[in-house]
Amino acid sequence: MKAEIGGAVDAGVEQRVRDSFQRQGLMGHLGATLSEVRQGLVSIRMPFRPELSQQHGYFHAGGTSAIADSAGGYAAFTLFPELSSVLTVEFKINLLNPARGDALEAVGKVVKAGRTLTICQLEVFADDAGQRTLVAIGQQTLICMHGHQDAPKPARAG
Amino acid sequence: MKAEIGGAVDAGVEQRVRDSFQRQGLMGHLGATLSEVRQGLVSIRMPFRPELSQQHGYFHAGGTSAIADSAGGYAAFTLFPELSSVLTVEFKINLLNPARGDALEAVGKVVKAGRTLTICQLEVFADDAGQRTLVAIGQQTLICMHGHQDAPKPARAG
Amino acid sequence: MKAEIGGAVDAGVEQRVRDSFQRQGLMGHLGATLSEVRQGLVSIRMPFRPELSQQHGYFHAGGTSAIADSAGGYAAFTLFPELSSVLTVEFKINLLNPARGDALEAVGKVVKAGRTLTICQLEVFADDAGQRTLVAIGQQTLICMHGHQDAPKPARAG
Amino acid sequence: MKAEIGGAVDAGVEQRVRDSFQRQGLMGHLGATLSEVRQGLVSIRMPFRPELSQQHGYFHAGGTSAIADSAGGYAAFTLFPELSSVLTVEFKINLLNPARGDALEAVGKVVKAGRTLTICQLEVFADDAGQRTLVAIGQQTLICMHGHQDAPKPARAG
Repeated sequence: MKAEIGGAVDAGVEQRVRDSFQRQGLMGHLGATLSEVRQGLVSIRMPFRPELSQQHGYFHAGGTSAIADSAGGYAAFTLFPELSSVLTVEFKINLLNPARGDALEAVGKVVKAGRTLTICQLEVFADDAGQRTLVAIGQQTLICMHGHQDAPKPARAG
Repeated sequence: MKAEIGGAVDAGVEQRVRDSFQRQGLMGHLGATLSEVRQGLVSIRMPFRPELSQQHGYFHAGGTSAIADSAGGYAAFTLFPELSSVLTVEFKINLLNPARGDALEAVGKVVKAGRTLTICQLEVFADDAGQRTLVAIGQQTLICMHGHQDAPKPARAG
Repeated sequence: MKAEIGGAVDAGVEQRVRDSFQRQGLMGHLGATLSEVRQGLVSIRMPFRPELSQQHGYFHAGGTSAIADSAGGYAAFTLFPELSSVLTVEFKINLLNPARGDALEAVGKVVKAGRTLTICQLEVFADDAGQRTLVAIGQQTLICMHGHQDAPKPARAG
Repeated sequence: MKAEIGGAVDAGVEQRVRDSFQRQGLMGHLGATLSEVRQGLVSIRMPFRPELSQQHGYFHAGGTSAIADSAGGYAAFTLFPELSSVLTVEFKINLLNPARGDALEAVGKVVKAGRTLTICQLEVFADDAGQRTLVAIGQQTLICMHGHQDAPKPARAG
């Protein structure tokens, strides 16, 4: 079955994405939440707080990149087989406008899904008093680790 | 005077970098600290904690990218004139190896310093029980905002 | 006046783009031609010939990149003031599918136009027996050289 | 056996690289030649001619990128098993200085060699009247196609 980018996902797929996101300590630490999980398309939202700022008081590009990276990674992951894991190979991001506002929303979208490699486009928007601005765009390459659990390896028994 | 990459910086330059770093709420929130400030070369260290993890328990690429971005930004900033500010135009990062260990250290180094644009190479190392591994490499473009304070604009008086 | 991306360009702007393209020896050498010049959007077409191949007989990524780079550069140039020139700061390209077919077409589109820097998205399609496939996507940063002629400097008189 | 980057290659490996390079129609068309083939490190030289120019009369970024891409691809290929082929997944290049001079030389160097993916750093130098300038740096991701001939598929017999 070919994926329809933006189409609804199975409950099982959504659960796998939400479980994996939950295990990403950094997302919780940044106050980021999954806002949308669709086939090959995932959005992550991150409200502003001073702990996310750069030196001028806007969102730091590191936080912008972190949610963009996770959004693309999970967009790819929605199309992967059940027993597999996702890793970012590389990404590139252009910061177009000052990332200021009430919240950022990153959208990762699969452009090419392959057996081994998946390529995503990334967009990050700033919502500021009801106005939405595109603040960053990116491209990302992800690898599917077939046969790998998407979780930490259990500690070896003594 | 031409900069000698890796050479000692003036006390004034180091102070401007440390003050600006201090204003980056995200660096504090990630537990990152400036470990080295030299001409066109800055290092940032970030000890591991679960709040920085991705789903397998290693450092999340978003944190890796955040300290790489700041290291390159401040490496450029050491070469900028006194009244100026630095912004990241774009960066690209390749994740070479699992980022696991006691701490990450990001090194940003200026490759080309121009009046408007500065280009940096980024490296991130993982220190794991005394062994150092290169976990990421990047390239970054920064812009010098001449005549701009590197701080939030003061609130307008009523 | 704000540009409408994809809108019609003035005759003067189109002429400046065509004159500059004509001066790019590489475009002629690759057999590439301008197929569309619109506001912030330029397309370049390159029919296949063996001189453009990589080792498997498809289009070489270098040729794909060359027309993508020029398409984005001229897309930006359509929005620049009359006495100015365009230079590529950097670009990144993902090769999604084998670039095989009768011809490639690169489309450069401005995403953010600034006074100094302009950011483009790049797409390259392969046309193969009437079927169009997206073979590459890219992101590019360009700089506007205000007050510079977009032509070689004249030889100094003896 | 672990590769020593920059070490001498077997005659067989060098021959495979030279044969593959010979099949790249674009390299011949650009007048580019292999200048060095070492373990994980390959250089390609391209003398200036007007057919390689951009609009100001310097080397076009497309040609610069083409030889950088091939240099990195063959650097990776030197470390691949005998029956395999190399494809570029993506690359990013920063253009640091005007690419003018008698010739360009691109150097591709492997930074991480994996079973599936290999990551290279790319440098391009301009040689101008005996002086060498770094004009571009890049990062590139390559994929090893295990079990694939690095040549066009033979035409199917009738």
